[in-house]
Parts: sequence; C-alpha cells; structure tokens
Amino acid sequence: MNNKLSGWDDTIVALATPPGISAIGVIRLSGKGTIDIIAKLFPSKNIAEQKTHTIHVGLLKDEGDAIDEVVLSIFKAPKSYTGEDIIEISGHGSPFIQQQIISTCIKYGARLAKPGEFTQRAFLNGKLDLTQAESVADLISSNTSAAQKTALYNIRGGFSQQLKMMREQLIQFASLIELELDFATEDIEFADRSKFYELVDSAKNEIDNLILSFKLGNVIKNGVSVAIIGNPNAGKSTLLNCLLKEDRAIVSEIAGTTRDTIEEVININGILFRLIDTAGIRNQRDDTIENIGIEKSLEKMKTADVVLYLFDVNTVSLDEVKNQEKYFIGQGIKYILVANKSDIIQPKMDGFESVVLSISAKNNVGIDLLKEKIYNNSINYSISSDNTVITNARHLEALQQMKLSITNIIEGLNNKIPGDLLAIEIRTCLFYLGEITGEITNEDKLDYIFSKFCIGK
Amino acid sequence: MNNKLSGWDDTIVALATPPGISAIGVIRLSGKGTIDIIAKLFPSKNIAEQKTHTIHVGLLKDEGDAIDEVVLSIFKAPKSYTGEDIIEISGHGSPFIQQQIISTCIKYGARLAKPGEFTQRAFLNGKLDLTQAESVADLISSNTSAAQKTALYNIRGGFSQQLKMMREQLIQFASLIELELDFATEDIEFADRSKFYELVDSAKNEIDNLILSFKLGNVIKNGVSVAIIGNPNAGKSTLLNCLLKEDRAIVSEIAGTTRDTIEEVININGILFRLIDTAGIRNQRDDTIENIGIEKSLEKMKTADVVLYLFDVNTVSLDEVKNQEKYFIGQGIKYILVANKSDIIQPKMDGFESVVLSISAKNNVGIDLLKEKIYNNSINYSISSDNTVITNARHLEALQQMKLSITNIIEGLNNKIPGDLLAIEIRTCLFYLGEITGEITNEDKLDYIFSKFCIGK
Repeated sequence: MNNKLSGWDDTIVALATPPGISAIGVIRLSGKGTIDIIAKLFPSKNIAEQKTHTIHVGLLKDEGDAIDEVVLSIFKAPKSYTGEDIIEISGHGSPFIQQQIISTCIKYGARLAKPGEFTQRAFLNGKLDLTQAESVADLISSNTSAAQKTALYNIRGGFSQQLKMMREQLIQFASLIELELDFATEDIEFADRSKFYELVDSAKNEIDNLILSFKLGNVIKNGVSVAIIGNPNAGKSTLLNCLLKEDRAIVSEIAGTTRDTIEEVININGILFRLIDTAGIRNQRDDTIENIGIEKSLEKMKTADVVLYLFDVNTVSLDEVKNQEKYFIGQGIKYILVANKSDIIQPKMDGFESVVLSISAKNNVGIDLLKEKIYNNSINYSISSDNTVITNARHLEALQQMKLSITNIIEGLNNKIPGDLLAIEIRTCLFYLGEITGEITNEDKLDYIFSKFCIGK
Repeated sequence: MNNKLSGWDDTIVALATPPGISAIGVIRLSGKGTIDIIAKLFPSKNIAEQKTHTIHVGLLKDEGDAIDEVVLSIFKAPKSYTGEDIIEISGHGSPFIQQQIISTCIKYGARLAKPGEFTQRAFLNGKLDLTQAESVADLISSNTSAAQKTALYNIRGGFSQQLKMMREQLIQFASLIELELDFATEDIEFADRSKFYELVDSAKNEIDNLILSFKLGNVIKNGVSVAIIGNPNAGKSTLLNCLLKEDRAIVSEIAGTTRDTIEEVININGILFRLIDTAGIRNQRDDTIENIGIEKSLEKMKTADVVLYLFDVNTVSLDEVKNQEKYFIGQGIKYILVANKSDIIQPKMDGFESVVLSISAKNNVGIDLLKEKIYNNSINYSISSDNTVITNARHLEALQQMKLSITNIIEGLNNKIPGDLLAIEIRTCLFYLGEITGEITNEDKLDYIFSKFCIGK
C-alpha cells in the first residue's frame, strides 16, 4: 500500500522499552519533525548534518538544562522502519528521566504515539504489508521457537509472497475469462480451457492448505491445554515436577492469558503445553468424574485440548479406568490414559480403546514417551520454516470467504454460467485477498488492528 | 584508575532493558570477543569491517536458523562506554527471543554479565572514576529533578574534579612538609609557612561543606517523610487530594522503599515528599497524641522528618493545639501547625511558638503557602547544578575520616608536632580521598559496590 494517508505528517514519540528501572531505556521518534526536534535538544552536534545509521553520544538538554547523557541512533527516511526519519534515544533506565525526555519532545512538537503507530506508519508507507505488520506483534508475543519461526517467516514476507502469487493467478484467470467474454458471440472454444480448471484448482488447494494450517497456527500461538486429572494419590504432583524439571517454559504476562486456571507451562518441541490443574477431582470406585460434580474442574476438562488421566495402577481397578474411558469417548474428549507407579507392579492393560502408557513418575521412567504422546496427540502437522502457517483469525476468516468464492467459481465453471458472473466471483475473491494484505481496507479496521500492538512499536 | 585488573578479558552479555513484552529490547555485549561473536551471528555483513558508531539492520542467525530481525549498534574500543568493543543488539521485545539471543551469545563464548559489570569495566578501564560510576546508579534510580541534577553533575565529573583539586592541595602541602623536613636540622623558617595553614584550612572548609551537603543529598536521594496527623474531621483526605492533584510524583519500585507505610508521594520543587498515613489517631479534647497510645502511628510520627498537624479550626480549641505543640517541642519533633477550614471562620492564632498556617483545603486556599512551608521546613540549602552534593553514605564516611585527619593536622601544626607525623596524617587523608574516587580500593569492595547496579549497566 504505497499511498500515504493524510494526517500522518506529525512526529510521534514513545517509550519503546518496558517501563521500569533498568540499565537503559529507549525512546523512539518518527516523522517529519524528528530531526528538528532532536536538533534543539542535542546542542553538541549538528544533527541534521549527520548521516543515516550513525550513533551520537552527548547530553540531551532542554534550554541548557541537562536531562540525560544519551546515545542517539539516527535513521533517515526512507531507510528506516517506518520509512520516515527516526531517532532512537537510548538513555539511562530511569522512568523519571524517560518521562522527562518524552515530555520535552512533546514540548517541541512531537505527540505521544498510539500503540502500534510506528508499525502502522511502516505499513502506510509501504515498508510492510498488513500480514507482515501483524507478524511483528506475533513475534513480540512469541514465547516458543515455533511461534518465533512462524512470525519471522511472515515478517520476511513468506505469506505475503504466497498471496501475491495467488493474486496473480486469479488475475490471470480473470483475464482468460474476459478474453472468452470478448469472443462470446463467436462461440470460440479456447485451446487453454483446461488451464481454467488448473488455475482455479491450484488456488483452491492453496487456500485449503492455508485454512488447514490455522489449526497448527492456533496451537503455535496459543499452545495446547492439557488437563491432568486423577485422584490425589495418583502421583500428579510427582508427574508435574518430572515434566517441569527440564521443559518449564518461559512464559510472559500477556493480556488475556487466563493465568488463574493455568498451573504450569512446559515446552515440548517448541510448542507450549499448558498443564491445567484440576485439583479437587476425587476419583472414587465406580464414580465417573461427572458424578462427583465438581463443576469447575469438569469444565476445565471439557475445554482442555487433551485430558491426561493419571491413575495409580496398584490401587485403581481396570474397570474403573474403562469406565472413565467410556466417559471420555462419550463426551468426545481427547484423552491419554497413563498408568503411574508402574515401578511397583507391571500392570496388564489389555482391552482398552486407547493404548495405556505405563510410567513411573517417581523414577522418571516413561516420561519422554509420555511427552511424545502428549505432543503427537495435539500436533498432526510438521512445523517447518518454509511453510506458511496461519496464526491470525482475521486471515482465517478472509481465507474462508476466498474459499467460498473459489467453490462458487468451480461450480459455475461446471454449470457453464456466464463469464461475467464468474468475473464477479473472482473480484470478490480478490477483495478478500486484498483484505488480508491490507491493500483493501479502511482506516477504522487498521486502527483496530494496530491498537493491539505495544506502545512504541 | 588506569590499570586493568586481570580476569576482565572475557566478553559479557546482558539484557539492558527491563524484562517484559515491549516494542524493543536491547541486549548488550562488551569485551574482546564481542565483534567475533556477533560476526558469527550476523552473516549479512562483515561486522569486523564496520566503523565505530554505526548501525546495521539484518537477521541474527544461529547456524542458519533465524533468531530475530535486529538492529546492531557498534561501538569500537576505546570509544565506548566500557572502553572495550561494545555491540548493542536491539531486537523485538519478546522475552523468549531475548533469552535466545543471550543464550546464543553465550554459546559462542560470551558469559552473562554480573550486575553493574559494564560500569565496573568502564571504571577499571579509566573511563569513569568511582564517584562517577556510582552516580550512574543514582541517575538510574533518580525520580526527581534534584536527584537527576545531582547525579548528572557527578557523572560528568563535578565531584571528581573537586576531589582531584583537593588531592593536589594535600600533595602540595605534603611536599612543603617534606621540604621542611629536609632542612629540619638547619632550623630554617620558610617564608610560606602561612601557606600551610591556608592549604589545610581550605581543604577543611571544603570537606566540611561536602559533609554538610549530605543532609541535602539524603533528602534528594530519599525524599522527606511528612506525617500528616489530625482527627478524622480535620479534612485530611481533602488536603491530600489538594496536594496530590498537581504534584503527584512518578515513583518507581526501588528495593528498600518501605511502601507499606507510604501513602502518597508528591514532588515539590524537585524534592520528593512522602506523605505518611497516620490514620487511626483520634485527637480528643485534652488528649495529646501520646495519650491515645496508638503505637504504630506514634512511631511513624516520631520517625517522620516533619509532622503536619492538621486541625479543624472551628471545632478544635486553641488549648488543645497548644498542648499538642508542647508535646512536639518536648519530643523534639519538627512540626507544622495547619488550621484547616479557615473558609468558615477566621481563626485567631496568637501565642504559638510556631506560626500557624490557615488554609482551606476545600477551596484550595493556602495550599501553595503550605507547600512552600513544607519545603522550607525540610530544605535549608539551595539546590544548584554547580555544587557537589554528597548523596552516598560511603562518600560521607570517607569524608568524615578525612575530616578527622585534617583536624589532627591542624592540631599538630598548632602544637608544632614533627613533620613526619604530619606526613602520616596527610597520607591517611589521601588514603580516604582515594577510597572515594576508587584509586585506593580492593576488588571485594568494588564487587560489592557494583553488585547493587542493574543487570546490563
């Protein structure tokens, strides 16, 4: 989107690093006035004369009063993130001083940036398309290697490239249709009629794959919830410690994360698994979990992606486990049956729908197999850095609309509907494609998308 | 201190910005291996060939796997903060990615920096003396303009310069003494004998002023505690709102701040005043606060720098207020008597030791005067950016030792003690001076001082 909207000529400023006391804090300015504003605050050098991508150390002053000793990084338009002049002020990590620097910049003509406004400007100036811009936010909130890879692939234009090619195919298809329209009265049969089908089919396949990838994308972005259930003596806490020992994930506070129900998070092969506490479920002989009626735990279990049913193989009867399994199957719950304390006796586990995994949490036996099982139960796709994975619900929605159009087109082709009707469908399809990349969109929608970004990004 | 200690040849790495999700995060490396390590991770450019103070955008990769799209800032030795090669990696503000960048740097030979180690290296490489280094930490934790000014003045070498001159004076004095010693047997009276006194006197004056400045320094660094007392109908909350409306301070979480007792913090003329809640004190007729016996509130009042006694001038008798004043005087408590609700009647306030200030918190009358009074009651010095203010207890201690030596020297001069004894005292004095600047110190002490710094600084 190379057209610059109006109202984006002012200079914005924001703290780009987290608030708090630290070694350094970075304040970022972007816009036409950037150089002028900083030139007034940095008397020791002529800022306007400095080259792009250079660093300058000195005192930041407001009318002679020293504010801080800072390091300036200068990025001149168009060679910057936003495509505008950018200066990054790296100062001492005092929130008080950061506040002062920002107020001083505002005093000299800047205004506080809205969340995501730097990236929004990058988008408006054609430095990024919308899928790339959205991936910036995804990368920032990534907390696994899978999320990181997917986001980086998209930032670097992986998805954009694929959409671009699909767009070209659709336009090519449209031109073929139009060609046929021109000669419609002459009843000419084109040699490349089969190419019609080929093109539409290829586009449909690609859309299908992208839609399918969302399931993985969702797992990559949001992780997999695993409810661990079992009675108090089943060895749940020993198992939890076992799982956490090596794979405890670094999880940051993200708005919307329902921390109250999350017990612990582990990282298996780059995917986050949220182990959900269902303490409170007592599993009594012949009682299914449902019968116990602990509403909240039950709800957690039902909303979990997979339920890990842990039992002490020495004290729980096989009938009880089978009862439990029947319940899972009846409710359509994905489950893993795990027989713990297998170090004491070796259980016979025949006659189950699902294979029962025997472990000894105490002796760390079978844990790797269990992790593999948890992983395989949830991830049916291979994660590679060369494939687009859709992680964004907005993209999914547009792709589903595209699929609808493509299906209509194929049906129309089969039913030999008039070319002009086909052309309308193609235009619809292209419209939704343009919505993904941001070529077709409106300012409100953009504002909404960028409002979810960090301040300073 | 231009000598480089051993064991500082390795390359250190740390996150220099606060942890948390944000637009950007900065990871900093310093040391001989910096360029080599980053060269391996940043394949798109030859890092070793880049000039100092330049910026480079590209992908950070570990063996071909992209970690993040980053901005590198290169500072080559000796033109850097530490005096060593420094590279700052500005990446996306994802804690997960930051962790990965740091681990990758460690994998290629860096080690995690200790708190303050960058500044410690700057000190060891002679880029800063110890007072300047300590001011870096002060600047980071500064949350008022007074603290900021003092710290910036010291970072820029204000205090160092003063100490340097004092050192020269003392050495000059020592050389005069030695000259006299050489000619001692010849009983020669030097013409500049009076210069002895002049030099010692000047040093003593300077030390005295520095010691005196600590009181202000302490106020600048730690603020002033103001206990507001008065019975529930005195209008305490209205007054608090009045005071807070315009001057609420930005206060960061600093280790050691006793937040449990602090109610609110306001900033008057660049100094923090911590308004301490003493809710629970009921002031009954003829009861002094002591009699009420609310231990905790009493304790707060006694440890406060100043007590603001607020009373409703319409309902409290003058005798009661006088009783209260007697109590303050008896206990040696600094106090301000404030007659509130003066909008209702105009009180007669004669016969008090201290002037009673009449205000109407409700109508915002007299509040500016009150602020001025609070300020003047606590700050007896003028804060200027051209004077050294001691804010560090370590400096105070050394200065007190210096004062002891100087006093001994003056006494010795008066008693005409032998020159070699004077020379010992001068050496003692110089020793303590060297302790302040870090010229004389040991590694343990340094480690202790820098251990209180932020990671990454």
